[in-house]
Amino acid sequence: MEMETLSPQALRALCRTGEFAGQTAGFAKGYVQANLMILPREYAFDFLLFCQRNPKPCPLVEVLEPGRFMPDCAPGADLRTDISGYRVFENGEVAHEVTDITAFWRDDLVSFLLGCSFSFETALIDGDIPLRHVAQRRNVAMYKTDIACQPAGRFHGNMVVSMRPIKSRDVARAVEISGRFPQVHGAPIHIGHPQAIGINDLSKPDFGDAVQILDDELPVFWACGVTPQYVAQRSRIPFCISHSPGKMLVTDFRNE
Amino acid sequence: MEMETLSPQALRALCRTGEFAGQTAGFAKGYVQANLMILPREYAFDFLLFCQRNPKPCPLVEVLEPGRFMPDCAPGADLRTDISGYRVFENGEVAHEVTDITAFWRDDLVSFLLGCSFSFETALIDGDIPLRHVAQRRNVAMYKTDIACQPAGRFHGNMVVSMRPIKSRDVARAVEISGRFPQVHGAPIHIGHPQAIGINDLSKPDFGDAVQILDDELPVFWACGVTPQYVAQRSRIPFCISHSPGKMLVTDFRNE
Repeated sequence: MEMETLSPQALRALCRTGEFAGQTAGFAKGYVQANLMILPREYAFDFLLFCQRNPKPCPLVEVLEPGRFMPDCAPGADLRTDISGYRVFENGEVAHEVTDITAFWRDDLVSFLLGCSFSFETALIDGDIPLRHVAQRRNVAMYKTDIACQPAGRFHGNMVVSMRPIKSRDVARAVEISGRFPQVHGAPIHIGHPQAIGINDLSKPDFGDAVQILDDELPVFWACGVTPQYVAQRSRIPFCISHSPGKMLVTDFRNE
Repeated sequence: MEMETLSPQALRALCRTGEFAGQTAGFAKGYVQANLMILPREYAFDFLLFCQRNPKPCPLVEVLEPGRFMPDCAPGADLRTDISGYRVFENGEVAHEVTDITAFWRDDLVSFLLGCSFSFETALIDGDIPLRHVAQRRNVAMYKTDIACQPAGRFHGNMVVSMRPIKSRDVARAVEISGRFPQVHGAPIHIGHPQAIGINDLSKPDFGDAVQILDDELPVFWACGVTPQYVAQRSRIPFCISHSPGKMLVTDFRNE
């Protein structure tokens, strides 16, 4: 079985039965993968407003009405079972790490699906811009910054970014290519000086795995889909659910 | 006093004191004008979701937290007094037509400011594409269509469009120019065949004033900011407030 060429439907079916519980990077190539955030209706307006005010870290793919768990972007899918891993948060702390959230489901829960950088990574690689973490089969390096997001109601916090080392000669092209994907973070938010955005040590990412930067490369930073999860945690929402890191919803939408 | 060259601040001050209670088309030239929609918090998530799903008729300029009435897009302004006219709706019917809504204000009200076609109209005129309703100092002609908006929770209904007759030779350019303003409805949603979108008689607009179409012109239709108001009415929200037709909030944002 070739995971890379599996259809989104087949991959989701394997998640549902529990046969697949791994990370989804590189799987079902060509299809949009999405971050998941589930919140009680009470917090849904503030969170939607937060996404609307911070489109780069929080690009909305789809928002479902309260109680709904079957998204239009993945016909037939059930958001409660068809992702390979979930984190259930209570008061900002991970309370459960599970592969099925049916037992936690409530009629007042609102599901948000947000764009993920896997989409533009494929485009970068197709554009002959190699990505070290992909070649080394690691998770991308992610860092907390001192860039404040626009607050919205109860939600406030700094932006999380992902970093990819890019050859200096390729940086302009990497900006152009990723800029064509406004639905998935778009162009970089910073290039070259980690200190300028509050990152003091690139060798110690806050999430994901560190990756080497060569002499002819610059660190390039993109707004990261971990931001909403981090902000919801920091804002100490009593209850929310997200996908586990790297375990995304694979949708039926094509990247292009 | 030249109304066209008044600053947004001065125009808003005249609204506040009640000295000005007219329509704002063509006033404070070069500044973004915005549609206003105010709803109780209970309906705010559904309405924000409706806007997010229908960005062409409902392009968000700003959404304020519940109870707030001082928008960032117009520093110093008070949304309760600085618009030249308001409509207060009860169960989908106009219950009051006033120039000050302070008496109706509640802490659970959420204000939405939405883009308005005045911005791209200026660009069309500057691009040597004349607009008959502007030359004749009339309100633009608006029509209900059979194009269903994407519903969201309680909100559902068809799109309202505005129509401008454009010389055939200028139609492509009108598309290009207005397409550069995605924050204010963007490119047209239909060109040439009113029947195809459920409009049977161009001489009888549902809102605004009818305007002649010459032989060398095509009717060009843009998504219209009256849509959210029409949809809120049709969805029979118990209480909401909007600006009166043609009486917009003049912001400090520049069109370009």
